[in-house]
Amino acid sequence: MSLSPALLEWMQPRLNQVEQALNLWIDAAAPAQLGQAMRYAVLDGGKRLRPLLVMATAQALGDATSDDAVMRAACALELIHAYSLVHDDMPCMDNDVLRRGKPTVHVQFGQAQALLAGDALQSLAFELLTPEEGDAAVQARCCALLARASGYWGMAGGQAIDLAHVGQRMTLENLQQMHRLKTGALLLCGVQMGAACAGFSQGPVWHALERFGQTLGLAFQVVDDVLDVTSDSMTLGKTAGKDAQAEKPTYVSALGLDKAQAWADELAVQAHQALTDTGLPEEPLITLRELTRWVVQRKH
Amino acid sequence: MSLSPALLEWMQPRLNQVEQALNLWIDAAAPAQLGQAMRYAVLDGGKRLRPLLVMATAQALGDATSDDAVMRAACALELIHAYSLVHDDMPCMDNDVLRRGKPTVHVQFGQAQALLAGDALQSLAFELLTPEEGDAAVQARCCALLARASGYWGMAGGQAIDLAHVGQRMTLENLQQMHRLKTGALLLCGVQMGAACAGFSQGPVWHALERFGQTLGLAFQVVDDVLDVTSDSMTLGKTAGKDAQAEKPTYVSALGLDKAQAWADELAVQAHQALTDTGLPEEPLITLRELTRWVVQRKH
Repeated sequence: MSLSPALLEWMQPRLNQVEQALNLWIDAAAPAQLGQAMRYAVLDGGKRLRPLLVMATAQALGDATSDDAVMRAACALELIHAYSLVHDDMPCMDNDVLRRGKPTVHVQFGQAQALLAGDALQSLAFELLTPEEGDAAVQARCCALLARASGYWGMAGGQAIDLAHVGQRMTLENLQQMHRLKTGALLLCGVQMGAACAGFSQGPVWHALERFGQTLGLAFQVVDDVLDVTSDSMTLGKTAGKDAQAEKPTYVSALGLDKAQAWADELAVQAHQALTDTGLPEEPLITLRELTRWVVQRKH
Repeated sequence: MSLSPALLEWMQPRLNQVEQALNLWIDAAAPAQLGQAMRYAVLDGGKRLRPLLVMATAQALGDATSDDAVMRAACALELIHAYSLVHDDMPCMDNDVLRRGKPTVHVQFGQAQALLAGDALQSLAFELLTPEEGDAAVQARCCALLARASGYWGMAGGQAIDLAHVGQRMTLENLQQMHRLKTGALLLCGVQMGAACAGFSQGPVWHALERFGQTLGLAFQVVDDVLDVTSDSMTLGKTAGKDAQAEKPTYVSALGLDKAQAWADELAVQAHQALTDTGLPEEPLITLRELTRWVVQRKH
């Protein structure tokens, strides 16, 4: 899918801002090339879907108490995502050598440095969320959301389930639980932090947005599994066919390609419905709707 | 050194509280044995010096706004320390098989699980710091302090310097920079978070306590290097002589054993002076003084 002109127009300046902020906030001078390895892992790559979700959600809610807080939440989330990729690519995990079209961090900098770079990216995420100036309540709330989404009942837990099931069949229910944690938790967290920056932490709008984030996260993973089968490494910027090769359970292996594709479309419908259920006027929701279409129709 | 009866009496109930809190807060039911690996890494072991520092500092300042906040800061710091040990022991780092008298986490659970357990322990630290109830300003401040102390300008940065200098001589100044980050940052953070829980974030008392924390951290590392040479694995609960074997620069290799020992004593004097410089009455400082003596005179 080519991006819609409206979404492109919204995205481009924001992608530039995110890149500039990350460039500013990841200190190249950090000791013994650690900053270099971290920058290599984060800069110049990735779709930046998670930061965009933070920004689009904050904007849908009439923007936030502070642009700085939104940008920090957006970048912190991207740092967590980037660290997870660095560790996930290591030889003791997926042992992958290609990521975002470049050699993976451990190939480029060695395993020990990759381990430390991932660790320090996680720390930096929480450092970004807590500058001296700013609304302490929003900061504490974003830290809580991000920590939970990253941890054992979030991304790390999902990866542990993944590890434990290589070469095994999983029920669709278990597969969904795995992905809800492994990929879904961070995408949901993007929506939650965007809402938190806009002062929301409960109520019907919050809950509808949570349902939106959960559904979008699931759709994202189903599409990821489909692309692993239907796309090639060049387009993906990472090794294609990897899941099948590693005998990992996926939605495609569980449902078949056609049904997986159809389910992704069904999830998109549900995500749009959740946005409608927020009761917000249609106009501020447009970007979240466009992002949803992009997630489901993307080719990499 | 045997612990003084006064320190023992102060420590024992607090060590029990820390153990109970960690036991409660690290969820054994987390997916696919991840919670088990994390509990294995943290429970039933370690001196708990860092949590004790948090508690002793908060107490020295007339105790804190909330006992819960102090306990959470204490345990969060211990989780960061524990995660760093898990990752540091992995084959791509120090490749150690013995820690706290037990097989290391990757020996017991496999490398992939050890990697994830370390990652999730770091997330859990920030989750502990940010419960829904509580003073948001203290929470945000503790997150900021802990993130900075853990990251590339703290512990992770110190480990990167360490990695980069295996087999090389270092100047005493570089060695000090490395340890200020690698070990010192978390010990200092214990003092800082204890003070933050008691409502301090600046002023002469804060700065004197920072100097105390820095000096204590340095003393701790000098003693660690001495013990690596003079003690045995059974007493240490980890492999002795490891630094020399790995050709790591240490204070002993830089200064010689006698001078390193003498310097540890000198640092203890400076730490006590910093406590005096807080201007606080002597009585509430007693426990911090006792902890300082313990750090310098410990045998493991």
